[in-house]
Amino acid sequence: MKILIINSGSSSIKYQLMVMPTNEVICSGMIDRIGLETSNVTFKTSSNTIEETLPIPNHKVGLQKVANMLLDAEKGVIKSTSEIGAVGHRVVHGGSDFSDTVKIDENVKAKIKQLFELAPLHNPANLEGINVAEEIFSSAEQIAVFDTAFHQTMPEVAYKYAIPNYLLTENKVRVYGFHGTSHKYVSEKAIENLKSNSKIITIHLGNGCSMAAIKDGKCIDTTMGFSPSNGLIMGTRCGDIDQSVVFYMIKNLDYTPDEVNSILLKQSGMLGLTGYSDLRDIESEAEKGNKDCQLALFMNAYRIKKTIGSYTAALNGLDAIVFTAGIGENSSHIRKLVCTDMDYFGIELDQEKNQIRSKEIREINTPNSRTKVLVVPTDEEYEIANQVYHLLQN
Amino acid sequence: MKILIINSGSSSIKYQLMVMPTNEVICSGMIDRIGLETSNVTFKTSSNTIEETLPIPNHKVGLQKVANMLLDAEKGVIKSTSEIGAVGHRVVHGGSDFSDTVKIDENVKAKIKQLFELAPLHNPANLEGINVAEEIFSSAEQIAVFDTAFHQTMPEVAYKYAIPNYLLTENKVRVYGFHGTSHKYVSEKAIENLKSNSKIITIHLGNGCSMAAIKDGKCIDTTMGFSPSNGLIMGTRCGDIDQSVVFYMIKNLDYTPDEVNSILLKQSGMLGLTGYSDLRDIESEAEKGNKDCQLALFMNAYRIKKTIGSYTAALNGLDAIVFTAGIGENSSHIRKLVCTDMDYFGIELDQEKNQIRSKEIREINTPNSRTKVLVVPTDEEYEIANQVYHLLQN
Repeated sequence: MKILIINSGSSSIKYQLMVMPTNEVICSGMIDRIGLETSNVTFKTSSNTIEETLPIPNHKVGLQKVANMLLDAEKGVIKSTSEIGAVGHRVVHGGSDFSDTVKIDENVKAKIKQLFELAPLHNPANLEGINVAEEIFSSAEQIAVFDTAFHQTMPEVAYKYAIPNYLLTENKVRVYGFHGTSHKYVSEKAIENLKSNSKIITIHLGNGCSMAAIKDGKCIDTTMGFSPSNGLIMGTRCGDIDQSVVFYMIKNLDYTPDEVNSILLKQSGMLGLTGYSDLRDIESEAEKGNKDCQLALFMNAYRIKKTIGSYTAALNGLDAIVFTAGIGENSSHIRKLVCTDMDYFGIELDQEKNQIRSKEIREINTPNSRTKVLVVPTDEEYEIANQVYHLLQN
Repeated sequence: MKILIINSGSSSIKYQLMVMPTNEVICSGMIDRIGLETSNVTFKTSSNTIEETLPIPNHKVGLQKVANMLLDAEKGVIKSTSEIGAVGHRVVHGGSDFSDTVKIDENVKAKIKQLFELAPLHNPANLEGINVAEEIFSSAEQIAVFDTAFHQTMPEVAYKYAIPNYLLTENKVRVYGFHGTSHKYVSEKAIENLKSNSKIITIHLGNGCSMAAIKDGKCIDTTMGFSPSNGLIMGTRCGDIDQSVVFYMIKNLDYTPDEVNSILLKQSGMLGLTGYSDLRDIESEAEKGNKDCQLALFMNAYRIKKTIGSYTAALNGLDAIVFTAGIGENSSHIRKLVCTDMDYFGIELDQEKNQIRSKEIREINTPNSRTKVLVVPTDEEYEIANQVYHLLQN
């Protein structure tokens, strides 16, 4: 079955066409800068790479462009949109309603819409993608895979905030967690690899960063909360911070709430500490002796270490930690900082294995390490396709 | 030497007169509801307890009343204010300027004043107390003991937030930590008791709640940050929460920033979760089967457990955890919840010893417990007097 994966952002569409259950990737690509005169469109197959710049005014035009490239007589990969058996949509926020992948109907769309105020940047774009895909790929099943779903197994003790109860019951304020598709995928791969499924901590370090505590395959806690802004230090997001700083900035420094929010989301994190948001730049500056960059890397790793400790307490044990996503898979430097002085937690990194770059799942601890240290390349598109496929088989 | 300890709050004065170095308490008491017609005044000696209700319009009148009671011909304890060798003032916020107890001069007072905006509820009252004490006890040395001082040994990696650097350098936004006098006192007592001083976590559970990671007697991390509002779940304060909740409440629920701040400080925590702010009520309701109370106790303990894990990572080891302050010293229930399922951290509570109520320092772990579990009654007044005395001896 051919499954098209669509990940619509506020001004972008990422897509991938896969054959399941063989996992073959037929093509992939993206459109960014939607709404501008100079959108970039890419389309890659094993034999071709097309890159174009043209105006894409909205998601509908964008998705139509994707369909046209798929159907292109010369370089295309399908003859008719009816070849697509299903479209799998990544939807960021499923609230407390969705703990699993679902077929999309009017009821599901209404719920995704109700969640706009919890995910104002993402859910509207996701729903737009669904509406357009229903028109263009009208014979395909439309399936929603939620980024929050994997975390819905968290117990109340982990997802509740210590605030008045009406804010949860009436206003849905609670921990949701994000990157669920990635945490699910890499924890399952880790469990396969370890042949044990008890106590695992997954560390997703990419554009956004989050961790999850996973017990017997189920998420019991995660660092991102009501929104994807807290927890670990990220490229431009501050992660955890005393909320009183927000009030202080509004009251004493004369910022508006929107300005404070924007500073904490877009000008903070590694960027705020160093002037750079790309970790590769920060690592190379640190190596040249830049003190801000050195400190920022230590701070980043320190927060991950503390969360490993915290989740080890939540799990009352630790079998493995799993690094994934752009930084987690590629930065041996961050992995080393995280694993240094963690022998209380049975973590002993093999310095040579840590240097290996690969797209394969790998163990980078020493043979004596009580706790396994794994690098598991994440593959959210595969995980979405897999979930879509299995939903339709059952 | 007779040392008078003064702890001025926004509408209260607590005081205690001690003889050092013998630790004899001559008298103690408090004045609350300052500014109202019905202030309560108490004065206790070993032989007398006086309670009065009268109007105390301001701190000056309040402190004069204290002096009059000390000097009272019949029930008083001194013949002249000149008998008081020193007045030790608890000052909440010492910013980054004060890492130790200091003699108060104009420069110190100016700095305490500069910190008003960081501690708007406390430092003005503390300075008012100093000014009035200088007049009334004019022959005494005036000494300031800062609640933040003990935490000034934290490394940058622990006290910096991942926000733009100018917010630290120009606006002093960082982790300060509070309850320092208590964390210092109980960690020193614990070290004495353990005859080892390496890796200790102190857990101060009172009206406010905070924890500190202490390595070789020095604080390396603490849960309260820029203000005393975050970290653990407290009686009415929420502790840690995703800061995006603040923006959501302002933007989507139409609260003002001040209202949100007030909800998170005064209507949250155990009160918000259960309707009760006194832990004794919550424990007795939980015992009767109240689900909200049961959950709130679990949430409270869960956050403490996670912080034990987190600080064990920061310390890369754990020799002892130390419970202190009203709840920490008296709630065997909370201690039990915290220590349950923590055997990865070598914590094994002796259930019988945990039930003992005492004003003495005590070990409540089993003989086999790798990590010691101590209850150390805190004594901030003694600690302040002790610091004042030692400063004046040197």
